[in-house]
Amino acid sequence: MTALAMPVRALTFDVFGTVVDWRSSILEQLQAFGREKGITVNWAAFLDDWRTAYRPGMEAVRQGKLPWTNVDGLYGAKLEAVLTKYGVTGLTEAEKFRLRRAWYRLKPWPDVVAGLARLKTKYVLSTLSNGDVAGMVSIARYAGLPWDCILCAEIFHHYKPDPEVYRGALALLDCKPEEVMMVAAHNYDLKAARSHGMRTAFVARPREYGPGQTSDLQPEANWDIVAADFVELAQALST
Amino acid sequence: MTALAMPVRALTFDVFGTVVDWRSSILEQLQAFGREKGITVNWAAFLDDWRTAYRPGMEAVRQGKLPWTNVDGLYGAKLEAVLTKYGVTGLTEAEKFRLRRAWYRLKPWPDVVAGLARLKTKYVLSTLSNGDVAGMVSIARYAGLPWDCILCAEIFHHYKPDPEVYRGALALLDCKPEEVMMVAAHNYDLKAARSHGMRTAFVARPREYGPGQTSDLQPEANWDIVAADFVELAQALST
Repeated sequence: MTALAMPVRALTFDVFGTVVDWRSSILEQLQAFGREKGITVNWAAFLDDWRTAYRPGMEAVRQGKLPWTNVDGLYGAKLEAVLTKYGVTGLTEAEKFRLRRAWYRLKPWPDVVAGLARLKTKYVLSTLSNGDVAGMVSIARYAGLPWDCILCAEIFHHYKPDPEVYRGALALLDCKPEEVMMVAAHNYDLKAARSHGMRTAFVARPREYGPGQTSDLQPEANWDIVAADFVELAQALST
Repeated sequence: MTALAMPVRALTFDVFGTVVDWRSSILEQLQAFGREKGITVNWAAFLDDWRTAYRPGMEAVRQGKLPWTNVDGLYGAKLEAVLTKYGVTGLTEAEKFRLRRAWYRLKPWPDVVAGLARLKTKYVLSTLSNGDVAGMVSIARYAGLPWDCILCAEIFHHYKPDPEVYRGALALLDCKPEEVMMVAAHNYDLKAARSHGMRTAFVARPREYGPGQTSDLQPEANWDIVAADFVELAQALST
């Protein structure tokens, strides 16, 4: 189908990985912290370990094994253990808070700001992230992202791909499923969105997980749009 | 207390009346509709009647007499009766929808856009309205309002002044009560915000209800800031 045949009114964006390059943003902040403190650590390995709080934490919430905890809470709970494992000791509470809140200061991929500016002329732009509201707001201000609306897991107390997130967004945006397009670098997210009747756009981010990335390098279904970046997405959506 | 002594990080804004001039915006759209259709109606009286859906509807929800219904739903449910009362018959569904959605196209007071632009340089700006998400988004796009975040009754399924709205906003913004300032033209809203420990700013809008307004002409308590408009508010908050 062509983009013009779609009655899309709003775009909902996955954020971590799709909009922002969380890995190199966090790595830079960890490395800068290490230089300041004179601490030598394999920060890439540290981040890989810290990151393991994310999917298992969300899965524990989704399966009812953990009461609702936002992403900031999941990372915060894991930080102490990772610091201990890598021998980083004696930090103040303020220093730990600074590390934890590195997740609130993430850089967009180079095409994002230009693409979103074009898309905003015609479509309502919302986040639909597993992040939390305060984090989404902080990232938007830091990265200059012109969202019309912040929707995310924390509002629904459910993580993607739970149906409550997609259905909840459709209800709050007051749109029919076919009027909203999910934009994501992750096939699982688009698969879930499509199962609720939403449109889908895949934008590959082959360096999200660093040089050795093996997943989500390609679209795994015939998504409505497959674009190399947000500028190409804006073109495909006639903006 | 002086503004500089306050650790405010975010401002939450009432929208209808405080940010946008809903009455003259709706009146203009009703009058334009009447001219197009060749219908002569006392549109000011029509609007006063239509408006009676608002407070009683919200009160019915707050008291549990009506299941959760957003503001668009309250106005939509009332529209048919008001049309009948004023002898406006034979409208298509599209025409009725256009009238109902007049509430999504509201103009800001003249000082709003300039004031918000200054405030945004330093503070997170969120709505905290009894409106619905889609309406807040539409008004923001129509009026050029640079919100960082859309928070409103529909997200909490509670109307102001229910505690869930204020406490919910504080939780989602990840702020302590004293870090958030409620900005409103309505004393009841500030009274509720203060009861939860929030800061308060009163901006009088003496023409919100038209020439004969009798309520909320003055601050009814020692609010932290009393400003004539949003530009004065921006000055008081050192932006």
